[in-house]
Amino acid sequence: MKNQPDKPGPPFTVKEIAKYLKCPFEGNGKTKIKGISSIENAQKGDLVFCSKKKYRKSLKKSLASAAIIPRDQKFDQIPVIKSENPHLSFIRVIELLYQPERPKPGVHELASVSQSADIGSPISVGAFSYIGDHAVVGDGTIIFPHVTIYPNVKIGRNCIIHSNVSIRSSTEIGNQVIIHNGVILGSDGFGYIKKKDSSYAKIPQRGKLLIKDNVEIGANTTVDRASLDDTIIHEGVKIDNLVQIAHNVEIGENSIIAGQSGISGSVKVGKNVIMGGQAGIADHIRIGDDVIIAAKSGVSGNIRPKSIVAGYPHRDIRTWRKIWASLSQLRPMMKEVNRLKKRIQKLENQNKNTRE
Amino acid sequence: MKNQPDKPGPPFTVKEIAKYLKCPFEGNGKTKIKGISSIENAQKGDLVFCSKKKYRKSLKKSLASAAIIPRDQKFDQIPVIKSENPHLSFIRVIELLYQPERPKPGVHELASVSQSADIGSPISVGAFSYIGDHAVVGDGTIIFPHVTIYPNVKIGRNCIIHSNVSIRSSTEIGNQVIIHNGVILGSDGFGYIKKKDSSYAKIPQRGKLLIKDNVEIGANTTVDRASLDDTIIHEGVKIDNLVQIAHNVEIGENSIIAGQSGISGSVKVGKNVIMGGQAGIADHIRIGDDVIIAAKSGVSGNIRPKSIVAGYPHRDIRTWRKIWASLSQLRPMMKEVNRLKKRIQKLENQNKNTRE
Amino acid sequence: MKNQPDKPGPPFTVKEIAKYLKCPFEGNGKTKIKGISSIENAQKGDLVFCSKKKYRKSLKKSLASAAIIPRDQKFDQIPVIKSENPHLSFIRVIELLYQPERPKPGVHELASVSQSADIGSPISVGAFSYIGDHAVVGDGTIIFPHVTIYPNVKIGRNCIIHSNVSIRSSTEIGNQVIIHNGVILGSDGFGYIKKKDSSYAKIPQRGKLLIKDNVEIGANTTVDRASLDDTIIHEGVKIDNLVQIAHNVEIGENSIIAGQSGISGSVKVGKNVIMGGQAGIADHIRIGDDVIIAAKSGVSGNIRPKSIVAGYPHRDIRTWRKIWASLSQLRPMMKEVNRLKKRIQKLENQNKNTRE
Repeated sequence: MKNQPDKPGPPFTVKEIAKYLKCPFEGNGKTKIKGISSIENAQKGDLVFCSKKKYRKSLKKSLASAAIIPRDQKFDQIPVIKSENPHLSFIRVIELLYQPERPKPGVHELASVSQSADIGSPISVGAFSYIGDHAVVGDGTIIFPHVTIYPNVKIGRNCIIHSNVSIRSSTEIGNQVIIHNGVILGSDGFGYIKKKDSSYAKIPQRGKLLIKDNVEIGANTTVDRASLDDTIIHEGVKIDNLVQIAHNVEIGENSIIAGQSGISGSVKVGKNVIMGGQAGIADHIRIGDDVIIAAKSGVSGNIRPKSIVAGYPHRDIRTWRKIWASLSQLRPMMKEVNRLKKRIQKLENQNKNTRE
Repeated sequence: MKNQPDKPGPPFTVKEIAKYLKCPFEGNGKTKIKGISSIENAQKGDLVFCSKKKYRKSLKKSLASAAIIPRDQKFDQIPVIKSENPHLSFIRVIELLYQPERPKPGVHELASVSQSADIGSPISVGAFSYIGDHAVVGDGTIIFPHVTIYPNVKIGRNCIIHSNVSIRSSTEIGNQVIIHNGVILGSDGFGYIKKKDSSYAKIPQRGKLLIKDNVEIGANTTVDRASLDDTIIHEGVKIDNLVQIAHNVEIGENSIIAGQSGISGSVKVGKNVIMGGQAGIADHIRIGDDVIIAAKSGVSGNIRPKSIVAGYPHRDIRTWRKIWASLSQLRPMMKEVNRLKKRIQKLENQNKNTRE
Repeated sequence: MKNQPDKPGPPFTVKEIAKYLKCPFEGNGKTKIKGISSIENAQKGDLVFCSKKKYRKSLKKSLASAAIIPRDQKFDQIPVIKSENPHLSFIRVIELLYQPERPKPGVHELASVSQSADIGSPISVGAFSYIGDHAVVGDGTIIFPHVTIYPNVKIGRNCIIHSNVSIRSSTEIGNQVIIHNGVILGSDGFGYIKKKDSSYAKIPQRGKLLIKDNVEIGANTTVDRASLDDTIIHEGVKIDNLVQIAHNVEIGENSIIAGQSGISGSVKVGKNVIMGGQAGIADHIRIGDDVIIAAKSGVSGNIRPKSIVAGYPHRDIRTWRKIWASLSQLRPMMKEVNRLKKRIQKLENQNKNTRE
């Protein structure tokens, strides 16, 4: 690995950073920036960003040496770089200042790469990583130590595969894909047929797993291959840690799946969907584009585009909130009904007496 | 690994496949079958299966070259093989046509097998796999690369252990067991005693983990050893991905546990139980035979045999559905109660006036 | 690894064990103890413990050769050791009798340790383990096979790291920490900014992950590094299997997190908190000291110290139980409201008639 991965490099001046960002700056351009920080924890030498006016008060108290602020705002206590999107600019500064953790280029002498594998150049293959027969790995891809790539796997260009990942045969991965540690790609789907003696016959899983460009998959997540046909994770999808994606699932472009969510077999998720943590989707469900599913929801039916749902069983989020608001009034209402019953009884007795 | 794992072998004719299945066929027996497919995605050369009449319409439009259909049905558009159980026959054809991914036989030169380990023959031990002292591995078992087998582990015959699996000491595995990638077997149970200073003393975990014949365990699932006594996964149990099974749990024969379910310490699950995804079982619960637990249920009490439960806290599924149906009527009812209150008030006023 | 890991050593007498525990004993001190057991499954030669009088009946039927009982109690059927805390004493006997599974001391010849890494002495580094540049590992720490330690990681003294663990750069671990198999420490947090074209820009994760002394982390759990600042797991925290801890989370001393729980970004958990299995905490929530969160709770707001909560959305546990008790009465009440409506209708008709 490089000498000082993940440590900041040499300092830059505010002027140099502004130029790199193609943004104007105000204040002393010679101020040196050594690192980045949140506003609260900034030290001398740190650059921070401040998108919203409500954080302005914290910024005034901060020890930061410079800040990135919205282009139409002013701040004269420290040097400022003025950006149309301060957060995006801040990200670019992080990429400038910090060398991410990367293994050394080349194939490590303790790696095992099949003679029949087709690996690109440049490439990094870390210690103890294994690349099976006929596997293909594209140019610029970085494979950390302890990765297992089964035979026939295809991996595109400029991907990053972290340690302890297993990628099984019939998996095809696009370009610029990031796979975090412990992820399992292309494992068997969970399918059985019950036999007469109550035991189960395994349904062989022979479909593919296709992962398109710019996908990122979090630590210890599992994505199963299809039984037949394909499991497909479309371009730009971001998946958090410990998520389960079952066989024959399809997830549309730029959808976001938060941690520990589970998507059952043959579910089709649309584009730009946002799924909160620990959500679960029953099998064969269709979820439309631009849907938001609240954390911990249990989805048991199809969801129309642009809906926002919550709860188990899931409901439109407004309905679900009303139900839970009503529940707090449930016991008072039960008491009220008992009181009304007594008043009715009394009225009935009065009427009986009146009429006698 | 073999030359073309997970790729179809040479084509067979419909007649050859029918003979292999011991089933009659109708139509051109010389039709060549190169692969299998779902009905929707079939191409020329593909065999499909069609168990239910409702898929017959799709079959008519399909490009499939042949189909397996129920023995008592007819279909003359393409050659058909007639089976008592089309899905089971289809599975057998998949096994005929596709070589599953398998490492080469023998111990890889980059594997580390203890001199005192007792390994069977034939055997496959993949690159970078580690087998500790006094471990036993039976004949015909396949160990993919990057498997860690701690000392004293016992593994039976004809098992398949995928990459990145860790099997800790005191684990004993039967025959024909399949362990998918990233599974952790025999890790410590979660047990502590609170000390006077609010910190915790660890309860040493010294029991066993027993996994019986024909069990299959999905990717990144964890099964803990017992603290004392045994954790037992009985014959034929199938466990999906990312499931947590705690110490001293016992799971009865042929039970099915779907993804991300969690079973707390000392739970006893009966035979033929089906547990949906993300279900959770509190500790020390007893679940009878043939119980069905809906996905996302939270089970906090014992369940009698043959029950079907859902919800958190769990209820009989009919009760649970009624509760949720009622909840939709809750707000209208609250309004109704308010209206009734006013009508009673009015009646009371009338009576008061009448009597004055 | 040592000759017989995880197997009991030579037998001790009751007298020897009592002396080791500094506890008095009654009965035949020469009785030989070969192992430990639960009361139910004890065989001749086993020592058991019995803290509560309600298990006394089982103890009478047990085949155990000796028992540890509370200091102020009596039992004359078998030799007894009398302890102020029988369970804690029992734990100490387990540690005396059983050699836990441990790799051999020294660096295995198939391990890969960077020249620039600073590793202590004594140390164990198992086969195929990888320690990157400038990493620091303290004296007495045990690293099982197949562990990946990225460059710049710091690990303290007397830690135990099991196989298939990945520890990424910028992670700092204290002393006496136990990390079970498959754990991922310091992986990227899940943070993106939506761009104009609906795709996402990754927010680089450059903060640290700090794990303090005496922490234990269960199999396949994932803990993310902070985006900026630090993710902190404080001293004495115990985390079960398959838990997700997101970026910038802080967990206070001696808190307990059960299996499959998920803690979202920037959550602050107090000291001595107990969290049940499959609980989920929404992002930026503050949880006070001494809080108990029931299994499967979905926490969506701050929780005051010493509270006990349950449900999704979470409520005070008494409120939650009342709501669920009410729900069972919901349908009868709906019927009652309908009956009352009819009685009111009748009363209204009577009044109308009376007044006409």
